Amino acid sequence: MREPVQNVALSGGAVRIIDQTRLPGELVYLDLRTREELYEAIHSLRVRGAPAIGIFAAYAVYVLAAEYDPADFFPALDRDCDYLISSRPTAVNLARQVERMRALAHAMKGQPQETILSALRAEATAIHQEDIAMCRAIAEAGLGLLHPGDTVLTHCNAGPLATSEYGTGLGPLMLAAERGLDIKAYVDETRPLLQGARLTAWELQNAGIDCTLICDNMAALAMQQGKIQAVLAGCDRMAANGDAANKIGTMGAAILAKHFGVPVYILLPSSTIDLSCATGADIPIECRDGEEIRAKWYAQPMAPAGVKCWNPAFDVTDHTLITAIVTEKGVLYPPYEGQLAALFGNKEETE
Amino acid sequence: MREPVQNVALSGGAVRIIDQTRLPGELVYLDLRTREELYEAIHSLRVRGAPAIGIFAAYAVYVLAAEYDPADFFPALDRDCDYLISSRPTAVNLARQVERMRALAHAMKGQPQETILSALRAEATAIHQEDIAMCRAIAEAGLGLLHPGDTVLTHCNAGPLATSEYGTGLGPLMLAAERGLDIKAYVDETRPLLQGARLTAWELQNAGIDCTLICDNMAALAMQQGKIQAVLAGCDRMAANGDAANKIGTMGAAILAKHFGVPVYILLPSSTIDLSCATGADIPIECRDGEEIRAKWYAQPMAPAGVKCWNPAFDVTDHTLITAIVTEKGVLYPPYEGQLAALFGNKEETE
Repeated sequence: MREPVQNVALSGGAVRIIDQTRLPGELVYLDLRTREELYEAIHSLRVRGAPAIGIFAAYAVYVLAAEYDPADFFPALDRDCDYLISSRPTAVNLARQVERMRALAHAMKGQPQETILSALRAEATAIHQEDIAMCRAIAEAGLGLLHPGDTVLTHCNAGPLATSEYGTGLGPLMLAAERGLDIKAYVDETRPLLQGARLTAWELQNAGIDCTLICDNMAALAMQQGKIQAVLAGCDRMAANGDAANKIGTMGAAILAKHFGVPVYILLPSSTIDLSCATGADIPIECRDGEEIRAKWYAQPMAPAGVKCWNPAFDVTDHTLITAIVTEKGVLYPPYEGQLAALFGNKEETE
Repeated sequence: MREPVQNVALSGGAVRIIDQTRLPGELVYLDLRTREELYEAIHSLRVRGAPAIGIFAAYAVYVLAAEYDPADFFPALDRDCDYLISSRPTAVNLARQVERMRALAHAMKGQPQETILSALRAEATAIHQEDIAMCRAIAEAGLGLLHPGDTVLTHCNAGPLATSEYGTGLGPLMLAAERGLDIKAYVDETRPLLQGARLTAWELQNAGIDCTLICDNMAALAMQQGKIQAVLAGCDRMAANGDAANKIGTMGAAILAKHFGVPVYILLPSSTIDLSCATGADIPIECRDGEEIRAKWYAQPMAPAGVKCWNPAFDVTDHTLITAIVTEKGVLYPPYEGQLAALFGNKEETE
């Protein structure tokens, strides 16, 4: 029933992706080689989801490095690493994985270029494999919080397309389907970029999971009517106190859930935890072009010309709104602050 | 600066409206004559907003009655009244104004048809004039709750297009602009039919009011950042206890406002209060076609074919979430139940 989606892969001298801006109408693969193509793919959300961006960027560093002139290797590497990181400011995995690749190369300075390249390739592959294992562990831990017959609310897309294999926020649903457990989903369409309608609904349908698409502003009524037993969301960056930056609208869904007594579960790989941010106030929020609200996707613009738009791409869900945090190491309940540092602090220092 | 919008009017033997489904791209007037055209205009939201639908339906009853065969006058009237009422189930004004027209005609049974028609025409015009006076009074009372420099959040469209002249939810903004007071607005786009983007933003721009369009799921962040000093909304039907049915998403905005300590003001003409509904649980909620979510407005469908959608058009904001109710008789604060019955109970009985 379930067809695994391979949304990021190395393909010869290119990074191959599914162009997520073409879904659900068309399944189009792109082979990207130049720094401009690679930057644009992240910036325009052809590849998206914090973990997937991290994997993609790691492969991108390798693909670009393979073309450098030996005399210019490290300046070119540094320039391209900075350039890739600048493509999206909020997702921590992007910077983290690029820096991991850069640090590896710099640590090998003086060794033959072929040796460095071979190590970069192995490192990017390792980042990918680590993500697969993490997603599986997150899905397993998250599924333990649900009960057969439950219906969950999802926001944005934290499925296989955003990660690798199982996804984070959608992982428990994917695993439940694999095991024949009856867990259904309401899917927030997630304006303005419609990741829920375009991607999550597509992934859940592919996996044979019973899903119902709603507009973001219908979630409150669904909760009031008792249709929702849990809110599942991924995370783009988590602060040391558990505040969780995720797609715009996640905070609103969490506030509604609190009002109606519905639990909120944030599912993420620990690579998304950024202990250098004490609280959510330290996380920069990307604001995007207002035309995404006014005109994108439509047959014609749906708001008057010249109208001002405000288009923040993320919000930060306060840790007090989060019932549990699910990582590859299991389920954490409040208070999060000490636990996050204890579980993930050492890893942070050794990177 | 402000150009008054004449969105419903009698024009010869037709009801003339602005086709609101064509805004903001085109300003198109339609002259509607047949029962099918008149029904369709309500059902397809060419005319919308509870008060505007009431005015429209009153004119529609007159326009249709003018063509009846004398031998069939009352059966035809009853058939068309029932038919018009069935075009949208949630808005109370529709049924109320149609029944007012029908009762007038039935009370004149036996009089010459010309006399009845003349009375129906006068009654529809009176309904329109009453609405203009009510909107002005609501705007005046609502403006008293705001302060120069405030920014309000609006949901859906409760402006002149939804009523006559000032509007209900937007009335205070229109009046503030007329008086040169600085009150700004954030405008929820209001999925799936985008009344905020298409209509409210258009009306506020026309009136020279500083407005910023956002997606519905961005309101929480705007409130968290202190950008919003009040939520203003209209109402399609209010129960005796103050529960307020309004466009889907209003309840969610009210819950967010409560969370962030932002006041919620519901502005409505008293004709929208339905004392026969004890609570919001008695108000029927219209569910519309899922294609409005999946495909409407778009250059191509934005969710996979065959995906289930749930498309409730309204929700009911609990009276405990409402800071004040503003009617043409002034501002009410909780508890609402006794006050609503005391203020509007007699009127109800004499109609």
